[in-house]
Amino acid sequence: MNSKPRSEDGHDIPPAATERDTGRVEAFSDGVFAIAITLLILEIKVPHAHGSSRPFSLLGSLTGLWPSYFSYLLSFTMIGIYWANHHYIFKLFTRTNHTLNLLNLLFLLTISFLPFPTATLGNYMLDAANRTTAATFYAVGLLLPACTWLLMWLYATTGRRLVHPRLESAFLHHLTIQYAGTVAIYLGAVLLCLVDVRLGLGVCVGLTLLYLLPPASYAYARGKRTP
Amino acid sequence: MNSKPRSEDGHDIPPAATERDTGRVEAFSDGVFAIAITLLILEIKVPHAHGSSRPFSLLGSLTGLWPSYFSYLLSFTMIGIYWANHHYIFKLFTRTNHTLNLLNLLFLLTISFLPFPTATLGNYMLDAANRTTAATFYAVGLLLPACTWLLMWLYATTGRRLVHPRLESAFLHHLTIQYAGTVAIYLGAVLLCLVDVRLGLGVCVGLTLLYLLPPASYAYARGKRTP
Amino acid sequence: MNSKPRSEDGHDIPPAATERDTGRVEAFSDGVFAIAITLLILEIKVPHAHGSSRPFSLLGSLTGLWPSYFSYLLSFTMIGIYWANHHYIFKLFTRTNHTLNLLNLLFLLTISFLPFPTATLGNYMLDAANRTTAATFYAVGLLLPACTWLLMWLYATTGRRLVHPRLESAFLHHLTIQYAGTVAIYLGAVLLCLVDVRLGLGVCVGLTLLYLLPPASYAYARGKRTP
Amino acid sequence: MNSKPRSEDGHDIPPAATERDTGRVEAFSDGVFAIAITLLILEIKVPHAHGSSRPFSLLGSLTGLWPSYFSYLLSFTMIGIYWANHHYIFKLFTRTNHTLNLLNLLFLLTISFLPFPTATLGNYMLDAANRTTAATFYAVGLLLPACTWLLMWLYATTGRRLVHPRLESAFLHHLTIQYAGTVAIYLGAVLLCLVDVRLGLGVCVGLTLLYLLPPASYAYARGKRTP
Repeated sequence: MNSKPRSEDGHDIPPAATERDTGRVEAFSDGVFAIAITLLILEIKVPHAHGSSRPFSLLGSLTGLWPSYFSYLLSFTMIGIYWANHHYIFKLFTRTNHTLNLLNLLFLLTISFLPFPTATLGNYMLDAANRTTAATFYAVGLLLPACTWLLMWLYATTGRRLVHPRLESAFLHHLTIQYAGTVAIYLGAVLLCLVDVRLGLGVCVGLTLLYLLPPASYAYARGKRTP
Repeated sequence: MNSKPRSEDGHDIPPAATERDTGRVEAFSDGVFAIAITLLILEIKVPHAHGSSRPFSLLGSLTGLWPSYFSYLLSFTMIGIYWANHHYIFKLFTRTNHTLNLLNLLFLLTISFLPFPTATLGNYMLDAANRTTAATFYAVGLLLPACTWLLMWLYATTGRRLVHPRLESAFLHHLTIQYAGTVAIYLGAVLLCLVDVRLGLGVCVGLTLLYLLPPASYAYARGKRTP
Repeated sequence: MNSKPRSEDGHDIPPAATERDTGRVEAFSDGVFAIAITLLILEIKVPHAHGSSRPFSLLGSLTGLWPSYFSYLLSFTMIGIYWANHHYIFKLFTRTNHTLNLLNLLFLLTISFLPFPTATLGNYMLDAANRTTAATFYAVGLLLPACTWLLMWLYATTGRRLVHPRLESAFLHHLTIQYAGTVAIYLGAVLLCLVDVRLGLGVCVGLTLLYLLPPASYAYARGKRTP
Repeated sequence: MNSKPRSEDGHDIPPAATERDTGRVEAFSDGVFAIAITLLILEIKVPHAHGSSRPFSLLGSLTGLWPSYFSYLLSFTMIGIYWANHHYIFKLFTRTNHTLNLLNLLFLLTISFLPFPTATLGNYMLDAANRTTAATFYAVGLLLPACTWLLMWLYATTGRRLVHPRLESAFLHHLTIQYAGTVAIYLGAVLLCLVDVRLGLGVCVGLTLLYLLPPASYAYARGKRTP
């Protein structure tokens, strides 16, 4: 994929193992995003309406699946937003290292897990005895990637460890506040779900809609070009 | 994947966040197309014919799955055609922006959803009480990507927002007519399914066959090369 | 992914719609190969051994799944071989066109379908009443990609339509014979399965082992370099 | 993906069929890694808690799935580590050949198989009668990729067959010891599982944690630059 530098005797010399291009990590992450987002539909099972004498039993079953459509739609949008934002922040990273790769893997773990709470919410949103559990579990499922994302961001930006040296401090700080705020809001959504499922899920939907807005433009320090 | 421009001090400077190369969007979309098209087979379950004393019970079960094969074949072809056409139109786009990325995500949502109505049609096409519902649901499943596709196309081409400036107006207009016509025909197929399942599905098959024809050649305005 | 040529005013000019680079088709096909080969395991379900008082009921269930392991192994190897051979022949193609793309899609359809006969064979190989049906169905599942592969090859090489002009005729002819022979052998395996399941599947295994041998080196005509 | 060399008459000349760039093998392997790692979640099924009069039956069901979460987490980490290490060693390979491709395919087979023992362990870890079988089967599932990995490594490095000629012998030897040791430890874990499930799985967890440490830096022989 990426061309390797060549030594004088015509053989590739790999770069040092600990400082690598971000391209491969992005490609792998893109693969996981694309698979997770497409797998979501497998959790919606074709309803059983055979053998019923009523002529429109399937229609009722299909419309009765609306909680599954709702959770499918919300999780699809969430993963799509994370995909876009993943590239957005990786463009700020000048390189990657072993720890960032592990933190990214941890983040992908929480993304890959999402189809399970999504299916759980779809199955139990209309079940009076279990809807609180299902909605809280789903909100936790959204909280987890927000936490691992923040972790990844804090690691990369602390002391400008892996980010471009000329990025504006205020710009980085702005994103840190945004990502920490996202964690706080999902934490609030988890707690709200325990009190009122509709309120808690409403916060999740609202935050997702906010994230559909275009991200902030990259801000680089000017005037530093001449040393 | 794509090489980044480098500043004078040797670090990558990412492009502005709102105007980006189409390469990454195409790669992600290709991933979703490839996964959705391959997942379709998971919706066809191995039939249960164990314990039957009849020697060819499995043969009957396998041939009895023909509605599933039919819907599998049609959806596979549809996704394959969208994959080819996706690249066809993205080659006309000189860049992408936040809104196009969102519209593309919306289009991919409707593609990823397709395995579900496909499985529903396969399960209920022979069920007299539910075949109308199943076929109409499937036709809606085909209508949705046609709509989101048209939306994406209209956004990109209105006022030549994102397309190559030297493309022939007549060529763009021709494609707009074609994509709007596709939406109209699928809308007709949905309505036809309510009246006669075979007619409605026949329109879907016919339109798919039409789309197997080679797409129109790109038409660029000539003589404008010298300003 | 692939860099586009640029016009004088700095905008991309896409190539003609009908003559395209093979890179994108190969990347998409690779995606389908990778997904189909990895999905195969989903067709092996965890056996039910709960509630049994016997201490090793799960061990018996797991070893009793050997027909599933066998069909999994054979299909995995088949898809892997097709993946390698797909690149092998696409390196001979100097370009692709609309018809080849459609034939390639048809070939991918038969590859994507493979998990279904694989699971059917795994489920019914030990079922005396249905093993003939299951094995024949599986052999047909292997015959189909061999047929679509031959079709793709014949289209590309007839009159050297899409292949490199300096390839040796004898080399192309050798491959045509090989691919046609493969179709003939799988056809024989289908018929043999009807008579004796073990013989028919034995032919499938034998042919797969043969295909593990390295492919023939590309042979180009020499001496034509100077015009 | 990779640019092909061009002959004087402007057509691509593919390289010899037996000596190829490693890029495509890595891309295909990445695809399989990404799919296998994301498919794991499909093996955790939404629990059935409907119709229960108890208000928190779902909560109990979800927490009762902890063996599934445990095996999911462990397998996810394992595949992630293999993904990172796969690139780590393929950067040392200057080229690939038919045999290495086959050995790599064999390795990918054992990776693709992993979701099945993972699901088996998740289902039976709390089943007193079957936990020994399930844990041993899972340990075998981890042993298999370790074995095929070692095979691939030994083939590529024996007589420096495919690795960079200036790599330090001590460095290659160090990795050989490490990979052989990994096989030995997993073999031990399999045997331990037969005696005590917790001990055997504990060894698996411990080894995984060790592999989270950064890999050794590449060591090239110096002073050989001038011939």
